[in-house]
Amino acid sequence: MDIQSPYLMFLGDVHDQLAAKTATGVVHWRRGDCIGQVRFENCGADLGLEDMDIAAGKAAGARTLVIGAVNPGGVLPDHWVAAIVEALEAGMDVASGLHTRLTSNETVAATAKRLGRRLFDVRHADGTFPTGKGTKRTGKRLLTVGTDCSVGKMYTSLAIAAELRARGVAADFRATGQTGILIEGTGVSVDAVVSDFISGATEGLSPDNDPDHWDIVEGQGSLFHPSFAGVTIGLIHGSQPDALVMCHEPTRKKMRNVEHPIPDIRKCIEAHVEAARLTNPDVRCIGVAVNTSALDDVGATDCLKSIEQETGLPTVDPVRTGVARLVDALP
Amino acid sequence: MDIQSPYLMFLGDVHDQLAAKTATGVVHWRRGDCIGQVRFENCGADLGLEDMDIAAGKAAGARTLVIGAVNPGGVLPDHWVAAIVEALEAGMDVASGLHTRLTSNETVAATAKRLGRRLFDVRHADGTFPTGKGTKRTGKRLLTVGTDCSVGKMYTSLAIAAELRARGVAADFRATGQTGILIEGTGVSVDAVVSDFISGATEGLSPDNDPDHWDIVEGQGSLFHPSFAGVTIGLIHGSQPDALVMCHEPTRKKMRNVEHPIPDIRKCIEAHVEAARLTNPDVRCIGVAVNTSALDDVGATDCLKSIEQETGLPTVDPVRTGVARLVDALP
Repeated sequence: MDIQSPYLMFLGDVHDQLAAKTATGVVHWRRGDCIGQVRFENCGADLGLEDMDIAAGKAAGARTLVIGAVNPGGVLPDHWVAAIVEALEAGMDVASGLHTRLTSNETVAATAKRLGRRLFDVRHADGTFPTGKGTKRTGKRLLTVGTDCSVGKMYTSLAIAAELRARGVAADFRATGQTGILIEGTGVSVDAVVSDFISGATEGLSPDNDPDHWDIVEGQGSLFHPSFAGVTIGLIHGSQPDALVMCHEPTRKKMRNVEHPIPDIRKCIEAHVEAARLTNPDVRCIGVAVNTSALDDVGATDCLKSIEQETGLPTVDPVRTGVARLVDALP
Repeated sequence: MDIQSPYLMFLGDVHDQLAAKTATGVVHWRRGDCIGQVRFENCGADLGLEDMDIAAGKAAGARTLVIGAVNPGGVLPDHWVAAIVEALEAGMDVASGLHTRLTSNETVAATAKRLGRRLFDVRHADGTFPTGKGTKRTGKRLLTVGTDCSVGKMYTSLAIAAELRARGVAADFRATGQTGILIEGTGVSVDAVVSDFISGATEGLSPDNDPDHWDIVEGQGSLFHPSFAGVTIGLIHGSQPDALVMCHEPTRKKMRNVEHPIPDIRKCIEAHVEAARLTNPDVRCIGVAVNTSALDDVGATDCLKSIEQETGLPTVDPVRTGVARLVDALP
């Protein structure tokens, strides 16, 4: 998968900003590569980009139309198809984060085939993968883990990769979810991989590299989440991280979509480190990344200080404080 | 999935007995439901059943042709298709443990559709599954776990279910792999489920039941196997076992197909129990099942005694000693 930028961001007529969450993430991290947005009448979301139609996007240099909006059910509405076909006719590829595959729409599939354009269904994982081997690879790896889903693993990973590159260290962000894949232009939607191949797909995502190169692998789920721990442990074993960063949302009481409480953060760190030792006995948790967006400034400062005391690890909020202290702590 | 017996076992012309491993397992556990075997010239395997052709199998009452043999690459050889079509024409369904789906062969698929017969590709998991919820269900559950893959989890599970039923206790074997599914006639090939849904698929496999009913869930992999731990933890969380049985092969030095050593059995028990506490805080490991087939009688007796001392748990070989002591230890 190699999604070409610049991107033309397609929002269609989604009802609200939440439905454009994926697109918002892409624009946040790759604003310079997002040249405009395509919005229908009644669209309730806005990415802060110039509004344009497909033709104007093409004239401005767009190479891929990115469908970063989700409408109810994740299906592809019939009235979006004409714009997608127009983009294909104009010479663009199309990338989509919808549950419904672009390739399952006959008109879209036939048009892409006829014109030799590429369709990227980034929520799916269509390649074939080997089973994981657990063999040590060269290069260094960091994996973000968490006390729950949706606690900032992707943001933290991107921020660490950016900080490393700003310091002149070779580093790649390795995307494992749809938004990350659209941001990076490549990656594997690991939770869509068949169970037998989770760790194998993750091994392929961060292959042998130069000894000083860092792969910053986007984590998913939590070992303590009863829905998704399988994805998490496959990512842990496959990425064989040298460093873990624990991500946390301090105001949440229950894990996402289940009745289970958020685990104790120290116990959570221990369990993730213990699991990671299987494929890298030298792994350490080097810090904590807290999403304090629900707290005011004073509350956030207190929260970070408290978690830092509790864990004995550098504790940051990637948005409020940046991740420099995490990068300082890398082996 | 509801595969109807009696079975007519199809071996085709596989080279040796190992290629008929799945069929051998089915015949071992359901001999009374296997009415014959279909073998071509040069077939190197023998299930000890009466040889017959499709017509004779039909006349003897076969309702499903079971392809329990694997040829190189797991593909469906062209010269097997005529026999499969003949079985469909004769009124049988067809169940297959091959990697290649029956439904991917146009002739087989078209014939089945025309005649209204069912094709079961038991190595695949074609249903849609919800994500796991971790909500406590009624009834009791036992899950077999292991120090590695292929250490006897299926055999141990079937033996425990049989022992329970022999004692008049309501019990079901819940199959999670291809051989188990062919034996039971239903189940989910959990390692073929998309990662996001491992625990959800497992929850569906052992639904709410009577308070005294036992589901004996077939385990897969090991938390310490770098290829398959994701499948294992999904099974652990989804089956929310009251009891675990640790399965072990005492002569193996490395885990299957990787360079990792077999884990210490006490550490392995602790890790599996700890993971299982997430969805059932009362879970206990109630015993150890050892496959001593590589040892002589004296060696086997010494081995079982040694592991029993080391773990403090009832330790049996399901084949040599039976599983009565494990069933005695159930809560």
